[in-house]
Amino acid sequence: MVKLAIDIMGGDHAPLEIIKGVDIALERFPDLEFTLYGDAGIIKERLKAAERVKVVHAPEKIDMGEKDPISAVRRNRETSLVKAFQSVRDGETAGAVTAGPTQGVVAAAHLIVRRIKGMKRTALCPNLPDLDGKTRLLLDVGANLELRSEHILQLAQYATIYLRETRDIDRPLVGLMNVGTEPGKGRELENEAYALLSANPLVNFHGNVEGKEILSTPCDILITDGYTGNMIMKAFEGTVRAVGGFFKTEIKKSFASKIGYLFMKGVFNKFKKKFSADEIGGATLFGVDGVIVKAHGSSDGYAFSNAIAQARRTVLGNVIEKMKKVIAEEGIGLE
Amino acid sequence: MVKLAIDIMGGDHAPLEIIKGVDIALERFPDLEFTLYGDAGIIKERLKAAERVKVVHAPEKIDMGEKDPISAVRRNRETSLVKAFQSVRDGETAGAVTAGPTQGVVAAAHLIVRRIKGMKRTALCPNLPDLDGKTRLLLDVGANLELRSEHILQLAQYATIYLRETRDIDRPLVGLMNVGTEPGKGRELENEAYALLSANPLVNFHGNVEGKEILSTPCDILITDGYTGNMIMKAFEGTVRAVGGFFKTEIKKSFASKIGYLFMKGVFNKFKKKFSADEIGGATLFGVDGVIVKAHGSSDGYAFSNAIAQARRTVLGNVIEKMKKVIAEEGIGLE
Repeated sequence: MVKLAIDIMGGDHAPLEIIKGVDIALERFPDLEFTLYGDAGIIKERLKAAERVKVVHAPEKIDMGEKDPISAVRRNRETSLVKAFQSVRDGETAGAVTAGPTQGVVAAAHLIVRRIKGMKRTALCPNLPDLDGKTRLLLDVGANLELRSEHILQLAQYATIYLRETRDIDRPLVGLMNVGTEPGKGRELENEAYALLSANPLVNFHGNVEGKEILSTPCDILITDGYTGNMIMKAFEGTVRAVGGFFKTEIKKSFASKIGYLFMKGVFNKFKKKFSADEIGGATLFGVDGVIVKAHGSSDGYAFSNAIAQARRTVLGNVIEKMKKVIAEEGIGLE
Repeated sequence: MVKLAIDIMGGDHAPLEIIKGVDIALERFPDLEFTLYGDAGIIKERLKAAERVKVVHAPEKIDMGEKDPISAVRRNRETSLVKAFQSVRDGETAGAVTAGPTQGVVAAAHLIVRRIKGMKRTALCPNLPDLDGKTRLLLDVGANLELRSEHILQLAQYATIYLRETRDIDRPLVGLMNVGTEPGKGRELENEAYALLSANPLVNFHGNVEGKEILSTPCDILITDGYTGNMIMKAFEGTVRAVGGFFKTEIKKSFASKIGYLFMKGVFNKFKKKFSADEIGGATLFGVDGVIVKAHGSSDGYAFSNAIAQARRTVLGNVIEKMKKVIAEEGIGLE
């Protein structure tokens, strides 16, 4: 059985959609077992499942609009998020899933679950939208604004193991985000990282990838520092929003395009879904000693069950144990 | 009269579309006077205008596919690009317009035209697409991968003067690209730049701007280092390309959406035009001692005439002289 802790109180549509997500996941995966952290009254009232679920009453939460979620985590150890992560730390569960505020999740993971020994940095890693049927990971999108080249290498190794074990991609192709494709492009960081990634036997290195290739590159993994990753992710989000707004405005302007829209409604709905930040928002936190999946804040039940599925695969793939082995072999833990 | 040097040989559609652009510009602006650098035979054959034009035979060019345009500039001082920039350096013209390869243009500007005295860095500055009717500048997109906070301040001052003098925006609003809007977010660079921008009387500072706001922020100027600006610009470009590809594929999938497309063709054409990198590709190089406008490589005649118009406005606005005055007053030239 895969044991996961679920933060019922985190997310824009918590607790109801999160509870729904738990029910969906229990139906989808018979090997799951949950400990739910949240308002026990509401959970008991709303949860359909009666088996494979334990409930721990933890009604306090970090507000989604909380200006300083990091302090909130430090201040209050009674929140559902902190309690769920404590169960991972204590080995009661193998991982936790939450739709709580990103910075709070990252902070709580560092403070409570802690980094894998020898792992120098963590990374927040969402999937980019799979327009061409190919899943691409982008990391780091903000766990660490700045990374050194050896951090980039270690995170690329983690991402390689993660994809190999959870998606059956034998030798995932790794690309380094850069301002040009030729070797020698970029800052000192990119040049150093290029050399390290090229030389490492575990990493199947493709070379540099430009920003315009994020949705079309043959790479499975796109790696950069957290500042840059955040900018790429949000520039994507802002562009999609602007495109959506453009079509909305333009379609309203003429009768013909209103008619056209009726014929194409399905295409536009698919566009909205495929390019939505909500769809791509589920992110795994690489490098902590427990599986942590951060579902998008606006997750509905189904989206949350997908985040649970992601945590389940990561646990079943023994990703963390395999990374620990790499760290031990390479001695990269010996700082 | 505004005297400009034109590189006839740079660009994917050079020399014919560039020559067309010259003709269009001469018709649009009676105060323009050109010196054209390129193949004199072709120019004489194709150029319609007979007045306000001087031709200098300079048939050599930097290939658009040139892998190392910077060396090409150093190696060959006989190219049309280098010759055009020399005329700016020698004061024969007030500025130059080229559709040649970006890195070659930036290198040639540094080597030949040189930085304004006291200006510590340059920046390549395109307009973002004006979806909501508002023009926004993004800089730097790659002239300098790394910038210090005092460079950011100086470039923000330049951009402020540029918009004030060329677009009649009295106090352009400046935003600092960052991972969050609250003060204190970001790297050391952003924190230092935030303090400098807040304190400077010339800069009308808005605060931090996230990547998702690039096309909707109230700011007129978005400032960041060249590595980040390049990533933002290209992530935008890649997203637009992916959206375009998505619609193309999806529309073909059903008869209804094909019909819908016929009704909405105008909207899709406008989308293509509005979001095209070609439309936004014209960039001014801030900080060199002469007006340098880099038109998009794929410019047609009309697009090139727009780049000329941009150079003309910058000359007429006395942007460089006004920046020199700021440098002298602030003593920021005294390193």
